[in-house]
Amino acid sequence: MANKKTERIRLFALGGIGEIGKNMYVAELDDDIIILDGGLMFPDDDMLGVDIVIPDMSYLIENRDRIRGVVLSHGHEDNIGAIPYLLKEVNVPVYGSRLTLAFVRDLCRDLKGCPDPQLNEIDSDSKIQIGRSPVTFFHVTHSIPGSLGICIHTSQGPIVYTGDFKLDPTPIDGRETELGKLAALGEKGVLCLLSDSMNAEKPGVSLSESRVGRSLNEAFYDAPGRMIVSVFSTNITRIQQTLEEAERTGRKVVPAGGGMRRVIETASNHDYLSFSPDLIVGPEEAGSLEDNRVVILTAGSKGEPLSALSQMAKGTHRHIKVKPTDRVIISAAPSPGNEKSISQTIDLLHRAGADVVYGPNTVHASGHGSQEELKLMLNLIKPRYFIPVHGEYRMQHAHGRLAENCGIPAKSIFLLDRGECVEFEQRRARQTGKVPVGNVLIDGLGIGDVGNIVLRDRRLLSKDGIIVIVVTLNRRSNECIAGPDIISRGFVYVRESEDLINEAEALVTKTLAACQEQRIMEWSQIKNSIRDTLGRFLYEKTKRRPMIMPIIMES
Amino acid sequence: MANKKTERIRLFALGGIGEIGKNMYVAELDDDIIILDGGLMFPDDDMLGVDIVIPDMSYLIENRDRIRGVVLSHGHEDNIGAIPYLLKEVNVPVYGSRLTLAFVRDLCRDLKGCPDPQLNEIDSDSKIQIGRSPVTFFHVTHSIPGSLGICIHTSQGPIVYTGDFKLDPTPIDGRETELGKLAALGEKGVLCLLSDSMNAEKPGVSLSESRVGRSLNEAFYDAPGRMIVSVFSTNITRIQQTLEEAERTGRKVVPAGGGMRRVIETASNHDYLSFSPDLIVGPEEAGSLEDNRVVILTAGSKGEPLSALSQMAKGTHRHIKVKPTDRVIISAAPSPGNEKSISQTIDLLHRAGADVVYGPNTVHASGHGSQEELKLMLNLIKPRYFIPVHGEYRMQHAHGRLAENCGIPAKSIFLLDRGECVEFEQRRARQTGKVPVGNVLIDGLGIGDVGNIVLRDRRLLSKDGIIVIVVTLNRRSNECIAGPDIISRGFVYVRESEDLINEAEALVTKTLAACQEQRIMEWSQIKNSIRDTLGRFLYEKTKRRPMIMPIIMES
Repeated sequence: MANKKTERIRLFALGGIGEIGKNMYVAELDDDIIILDGGLMFPDDDMLGVDIVIPDMSYLIENRDRIRGVVLSHGHEDNIGAIPYLLKEVNVPVYGSRLTLAFVRDLCRDLKGCPDPQLNEIDSDSKIQIGRSPVTFFHVTHSIPGSLGICIHTSQGPIVYTGDFKLDPTPIDGRETELGKLAALGEKGVLCLLSDSMNAEKPGVSLSESRVGRSLNEAFYDAPGRMIVSVFSTNITRIQQTLEEAERTGRKVVPAGGGMRRVIETASNHDYLSFSPDLIVGPEEAGSLEDNRVVILTAGSKGEPLSALSQMAKGTHRHIKVKPTDRVIISAAPSPGNEKSISQTIDLLHRAGADVVYGPNTVHASGHGSQEELKLMLNLIKPRYFIPVHGEYRMQHAHGRLAENCGIPAKSIFLLDRGECVEFEQRRARQTGKVPVGNVLIDGLGIGDVGNIVLRDRRLLSKDGIIVIVVTLNRRSNECIAGPDIISRGFVYVRESEDLINEAEALVTKTLAACQEQRIMEWSQIKNSIRDTLGRFLYEKTKRRPMIMPIIMES
Repeated sequence: MANKKTERIRLFALGGIGEIGKNMYVAELDDDIIILDGGLMFPDDDMLGVDIVIPDMSYLIENRDRIRGVVLSHGHEDNIGAIPYLLKEVNVPVYGSRLTLAFVRDLCRDLKGCPDPQLNEIDSDSKIQIGRSPVTFFHVTHSIPGSLGICIHTSQGPIVYTGDFKLDPTPIDGRETELGKLAALGEKGVLCLLSDSMNAEKPGVSLSESRVGRSLNEAFYDAPGRMIVSVFSTNITRIQQTLEEAERTGRKVVPAGGGMRRVIETASNHDYLSFSPDLIVGPEEAGSLEDNRVVILTAGSKGEPLSALSQMAKGTHRHIKVKPTDRVIISAAPSPGNEKSISQTIDLLHRAGADVVYGPNTVHASGHGSQEELKLMLNLIKPRYFIPVHGEYRMQHAHGRLAENCGIPAKSIFLLDRGECVEFEQRRARQTGKVPVGNVLIDGLGIGDVGNIVLRDRRLLSKDGIIVIVVTLNRRSNECIAGPDIISRGFVYVRESEDLINEAEALVTKTLAACQEQRIMEWSQIKNSIRDTLGRFLYEKTKRRPMIMPIIMES
């Protein structure tokens, strides 16, 4: 084997490192490309007006003929949300567990122009061939069933991608992470491990889902009226627990909103949710029940975790209004960027008089393993090389430290940026080159047509608004025939600032006259002149910098 | 005394309840108005482009002749930031500790048009008369020296306002909260207590500042290179601790930025900071020192806690760039709304290779008391009536629960909204009426000229941008003579969407023709017609709703 030429392997991420979200990892094995996950991300605050963000997949599209398949670890949005956009460009085979594929099918249906996907169901015991590589799987515990780790077998040894995982010793479906398989892989000599870094900064172990079940149970126990339970729509585990509590306490469940109904339908159609057939009722039927016989199940996304709930609290929801006898359970963790909206919703619920049960490590648990679990994974897999994935840079960094503590030499740990490649030859790794990466912003129906200029304009507009100046000039003499008219939006109350606007108009008139005098005939120059003088004037008067848009009409 | 007519007392808040920030409480005693604090708030995410927010003080300005004075509890921005804006309208006497007044003086100098303030220095032993009421004080521990609780003595009993406090048993200046005075007040029969609710949801007691000192000490102990310490600019306690650690470890301190230099100057001029005269050096002198002889002290505000630090990490700061040998201490707590920016800065620091020490309850402690401290305050003061202040509604709610547990009847606890009044007569309280309240937004030089319409426009503009349509119509016939020209900003890349813009222009031409045919001559109607058809067309094509601004010029 020592002399046999091994294949050339490259690993890189198109998303998922240096950030939370849009996980997408790529393995190149000679000519074969195997894609691991393809997720979306919710926009940052400064991506104004943007709905979702997906990875720039141009490298894949350029090398479309080499793609042998996409393998999905589980059905969360940050792992599968970009798949329909990929398939729209290149309809490659997709591999995943039954539930994962069911969600992919739903997403593909929603995207205009996405072809019928080629879905290939696998489970933790499947052994498949993708291109020239055997691929096997192992079951992991996470907050959604059908979560798999993925193992690509190469002539240099296995490459293991954990997907999202924790090592829950008491998962609610009784299916623990397949530690035996991990140990066996470790004995074989794993070439490289890509492991979930989300909680690499958190000491100890993450809370078991069973413990969350107990907290839910306590919260249901003495609730005097309705229960309102808010979960992420993809947290199937938490939904199952809520359904069970409802059955146990003789309540019916009303899914609030079409999204939640669809998730329950999809998951139960594929046997990933189990409950008695008459447990779920519509809002009308629920209306005729006693309050203490009702559970309202409401969903948010990671982008807007509590939108429906805050409508219910404010009284603007179509069907449901929070009452003082309601008990509300918020089974969601704050993550950087959504703490404020969670905090505001809790405030609204208190104002509506409801009893609010909230708090990480009581009615919610992280789906990601903490330090002790990550170390156990490292010790079982014993990889030759290690790439921490799924996390911000500081989480990758913390995960790297853990790996060092577990005996992996620092030089065998790669803290990568998106696009940076690690190349493996003869079981030796080195960092080489970079493939193009980026964010593709999706706004309404537009895919990628919102770029930096548009965002910069939105940012400018959002700060101090816009001033439009319209003048009509004589075609030949450039003499001002009509205007200048000034209209502003988002700048100041016009009524209170009439003087300011009048002065501004006079200033533009003066500027136009000066241009004429200096025989400046180019409209672009005249516009710049207006922009400059008016900008300076307004900043001096108001210390604001609205966008200034001069429009010249000719007559 | 039973038959003697007592004065009519009203208490209400112009800010500080139902929110974090802009604390401003008002006591009316017959004709006298006494104001307790007057602070600012940093804008919410949806207050686009706004710099700061202050309370609407129109009630005070209308009743200017009745204002006898403003009493300040301490020198934080959320307690004194609105004072210059008040004094600009009505220059009433201001009472506060030496440090508090020093900061007020600085703020007044910064605001154009603010008169020379009438500052009256008091300390915890002062006994003064404001209007017809004696006012006394008690020292409390908080994250800034010169923090006072305020007591207005009325014929119905004392009204006690705690200001911000914790009951730190080991404050760094050795000055504990004057529990004896509180107990004595309690024995006298306090009419009403207004107490800090910020940490009413947190069990236990808050960390002592001395414990933070120990963590700082550990962090300094083995730092191989420069120390960079980031604190809120008004956290004088933390600044003092940092200066002490620097002296102890033989380092010099470089204040980064003019704000920090000014704070150190103001506080040390008034003996609230003590350090040897050669401790502070400029950036040039620091450049000639060994790295392990340097501390860089950098400040943020509660609005942007780490702005200077993230510039240093990115390499865009004027003087300082983070190096891999630096140890960075972030002595700030995440609060709803700033977690994301803190998290991003920590990421940048890690990328720059620095060692980052961060974490509430190690190198930072809250300046506000937790549940056990709040209960002790309630038990010492034993108020007849209780109004939880300084906090969101859910914190007021939690504080109310604590008070009930301490034996105050629920009906004697008032969870107020801003402006809602509690009236006291013959030692009996009831809720009555409401004074006008609101947010005054400050954007650049404008005070209050940004209102709901302007904000709504900015929000619209920030989401999908703006489309301006200009047409020139014949004065009489309304025939279209020039245009329509369409210009967009923040909507789509124009180059990529030429077809869309062309179609839109054709649609406007058609709409204008239709208006002419139907003899619609009113320009406002024509504009509405353009707005409607174009809005529908663009939404269908792009699923976006840009602001549409039709402009008609006449010829």
